Amino acid sequence: MLNVITVEEAASLAASLARPVAQTEILSLPELPGRVAAADITAKEDVPVFARSTMDGYAVFAANTFGAGESSPVDLTLTDPVQMGKPAAFTLYSGEAARIPTGGDLPHGANAVVPMEYAEEDGFGSVLIYKGAAPREYVVRRGDDIAENAVLFRKGTRFTSVSVGALAAAGIETCAVLRRPRVGLFSTGVEVDPVSAPAAPGRVRDVNSHLISAMLYRYGCDPVFYGIAPDAEEAIAETLERAAGENDLVLLSGGSSAGEQDLTARVLSRLGQVLAHGVAMKPGKPTVIGRVGDVPVFGLPGHPAACCFVTVAVVRPALETLCGAPLPLRLISARLSENFSSNHGRTEFLCVKLEGDTAIPIYGKSGVVSQLSRADGYIRIDRDREGLEAGAEVAVRLF
Amino acid sequence: MLNVITVEEAASLAASLARPVAQTEILSLPELPGRVAAADITAKEDVPVFARSTMDGYAVFAANTFGAGESSPVDLTLTDPVQMGKPAAFTLYSGEAARIPTGGDLPHGANAVVPMEYAEEDGFGSVLIYKGAAPREYVVRRGDDIAENAVLFRKGTRFTSVSVGALAAAGIETCAVLRRPRVGLFSTGVEVDPVSAPAAPGRVRDVNSHLISAMLYRYGCDPVFYGIAPDAEEAIAETLERAAGENDLVLLSGGSSAGEQDLTARVLSRLGQVLAHGVAMKPGKPTVIGRVGDVPVFGLPGHPAACCFVTVAVVRPALETLCGAPLPLRLISARLSENFSSNHGRTEFLCVKLEGDTAIPIYGKSGVVSQLSRADGYIRIDRDREGLEAGAEVAVRLF
Repeated sequence: MLNVITVEEAASLAASLARPVAQTEILSLPELPGRVAAADITAKEDVPVFARSTMDGYAVFAANTFGAGESSPVDLTLTDPVQMGKPAAFTLYSGEAARIPTGGDLPHGANAVVPMEYAEEDGFGSVLIYKGAAPREYVVRRGDDIAENAVLFRKGTRFTSVSVGALAAAGIETCAVLRRPRVGLFSTGVEVDPVSAPAAPGRVRDVNSHLISAMLYRYGCDPVFYGIAPDAEEAIAETLERAAGENDLVLLSGGSSAGEQDLTARVLSRLGQVLAHGVAMKPGKPTVIGRVGDVPVFGLPGHPAACCFVTVAVVRPALETLCGAPLPLRLISARLSENFSSNHGRTEFLCVKLEGDTAIPIYGKSGVVSQLSRADGYIRIDRDREGLEAGAEVAVRLF
Repeated sequence: MLNVITVEEAASLAASLARPVAQTEILSLPELPGRVAAADITAKEDVPVFARSTMDGYAVFAANTFGAGESSPVDLTLTDPVQMGKPAAFTLYSGEAARIPTGGDLPHGANAVVPMEYAEEDGFGSVLIYKGAAPREYVVRRGDDIAENAVLFRKGTRFTSVSVGALAAAGIETCAVLRRPRVGLFSTGVEVDPVSAPAAPGRVRDVNSHLISAMLYRYGCDPVFYGIAPDAEEAIAETLERAAGENDLVLLSGGSSAGEQDLTARVLSRLGQVLAHGVAMKPGKPTVIGRVGDVPVFGLPGHPAACCFVTVAVVRPALETLCGAPLPLRLISARLSENFSSNHGRTEFLCVKLEGDTAIPIYGKSGVVSQLSRADGYIRIDRDREGLEAGAEVAVRLF
C-alpha cells in the first residue's frame, strides 16, 4: 500500500507543490529582519549625497601635494575650516587647504584629504603638508556607498538585522514584504487530548500541534490551529476542506497507529490527491504528501520525534517555497561521541546533545518526546551510510 | 589617552559588568521559544501515566511466551481487546493475551507486547504466538518518557521550538521566564539626522540606532530609543542618566570623529566609571566601556560596520549575562576565496558573502554601510594571525 519515496524526493516534491504567497504588506525597519522582500529595493538617491572625508585632516587638491615628503613639505594656504554636519559652502582653489573632520563635506574643488598627522599649521594662515595625497585618498565620493538607482536588495532577499542599516542609510523607512504564510494545523487520533486535559490511561496529550506551531513560528509562518478532529472520516474531511480553503498549506498530525495514516490518505484522495504515502526516513516513515486544490497537504506521523523530523526534512522545503526565500540553517560541526549503526535504505535522524564540540546521541523509545527536549540538535545520516564511527565529523543542525 | 584592551578582555569585562535580569513573567507555550527559564521546570506527573504499547499486537505475560518459535507457537486465550484511547479496564491473567493497538494501555498483569506479525488468531478465541517476548519488550513503562518530579528544564535554559513538545506532553501550559532585557539606546553626533530627514551635504542618517535595534531584537532584548542627543556634554549626560535609570544596559552610538568618543568617556566618567577606552579590534577601536551605577554602558563607534562588530563581539557577551543564557551562534564553515592580510595586534572582522562553501571578502571604505547589506556574515581573524591564505577554512558567523 505504501508508495515509499526517499527524503530527497519528498523534499523536492514538497518544494514543488507550494507557490510563493502572492500578498504583500508594507513594514517599517524594525519589523523587517526575517521577512522576504516582495520586490527589488532601489536606492532613490546617492549615499553619501556629498564627497566625504574619512579622516580628520586637510582637504586638498591632490596635485598640489605631489612630491611632498618629510623633508620637503608643501605649503598651502588655509581657508575656512569645514564644519562637522554643515555643507562646505565654499570652493577650494589650487594652493589652498581646508581643515576637515572625519565625515566632513569635501569642499568643491578638493579631491583628497591629508590626515592630520602629516600636516602642521604654522599659525600664520598656512599649513605644511608632509606627505603627498593621491586623488580620492581618504575620500568617500558621492554615491560610493550606495549609488542612486542601485538595487539594494533583490526581490526574494530575506532581510537580516544588518540589512536594516543600508535601508536606514538610504532613507528608506518602509519596505514591501511577502505576507507570512498561513499554515493550517489540526490533530486527529481518538486517543489525543488537549494539553489542558488531565493525564489518563490510554490518552496522550496533543504534543504535535504545539511542537509544530513553535517550529512554524520560527520558520516565519503563522500557524492556524483547527483543534483535534474527532476520529471519523467525515470529521477529518470537513476540517481538512475548511483548513485548505483558509490557508497556504495544511498539516495534519495523525494518531500513532498505522490505520490513522491510511485514513488521512483516504480523506486526502477523496478531496484532492495523494502524491506519496511513506518516506524512507527513520523516524517518519508514515508520512502522507498530497494536495487539496492548489494547497499542499502533509499527513505527519503521530510520534513527536517523527513529526519533528518530517517537519524539518520534508515540510520545511515547502515552507521555503511559500516564504519566497530559503530559511537560514544553524549548523555546528562536531565529533560523534560513539559508534552509531544505522538502518540501510532509510535516511536516519538522530537527536544529539552537544558538549563542547562532541555530539552525544540521545536515544529514545518509539513515541517518546523527552529525547527532543534533551537534545541541542540532530544529525542526519544518509540512507546509503551503514553508520558512523566514534570521532566522525558530523554537522549538527540546531533546533 | 586610550587604554586599549583586547577583544577577549573587552568581552569578559562586558559579561562581568552585567547581571541577569531579576524580573520574571509567565508565558504560554507558543511564546516560549527563545526565552530563558527563570526556575527549574519539574514534571508534576509521570508521562506516560500508564504502560503503553509501542506496536500493534498482543499484550502478554512475557513468561508465557518463552520458547515460542515459528515451529513451536504458544497458544494463549484471547480476552477483550484493548481499545485505542481507553483504559484497559481488566486484568490479564497467565495464559491470556489481549489485542492492543500502538499507544494502547497495557492491561494490569501484562508486561510485554508481541507484534501482530508474530501472532495469529485461530478464530476460536485463541491466538498463536510465534516469537518469545522479553519482559518490557515493545512497552513504554509509566514514567519512562518523563518521570514525576524529574527536572525537564534547568533554570537558565533557553527554550527552543522542540522544548515546547516536552512541556505539552507533561501538561505544562505556562512557564516562568526572565523578562526580556531592556536596552536603552541613543545617538550623538552633530551631523546625525533621523532616517526620515532628506539627504544633505555634511549630514548622515542615524543608521546605527536602527541597525542596533534590529540586532537587539534578534538577541531577545527590547531596545528603547532615546533619540539623537544634541551634541553637547550636558544633553548627553542628561540622556545617559535617564537611559541608565530606565534600562538594564545602555548603548550610545557616537559620531564618527575621534572627539566624540572622548566626549562619551568624559560624560561617563562624570556619571559613573570608564573601565576601558579603546578595543584592539578593526574596525571598532574607538569603543568605550563603563557603567553608571550597576548599569553597563557602551560607547559604540559611529561607523556602522564598526558599530555592528562591537555589538557582536563586545556587547553581546553582556547581553548574554543579562538574558541569563548564551545566545545561539549561527556558524557556517567555508573556504576563503582569496588571500587576506590582516593587521597585527588587532582582531579583525571581515564581511563575507557566501557562494556555496566559498567565503568571498567584501571590502568597504571606512564608514560605508553597504558592505554589511551585501554580506551574509563575517569572519573573525585573531590578532596574532598575520592573515589568511586563499582556501583557508574559516568559520563564517551569519548575520
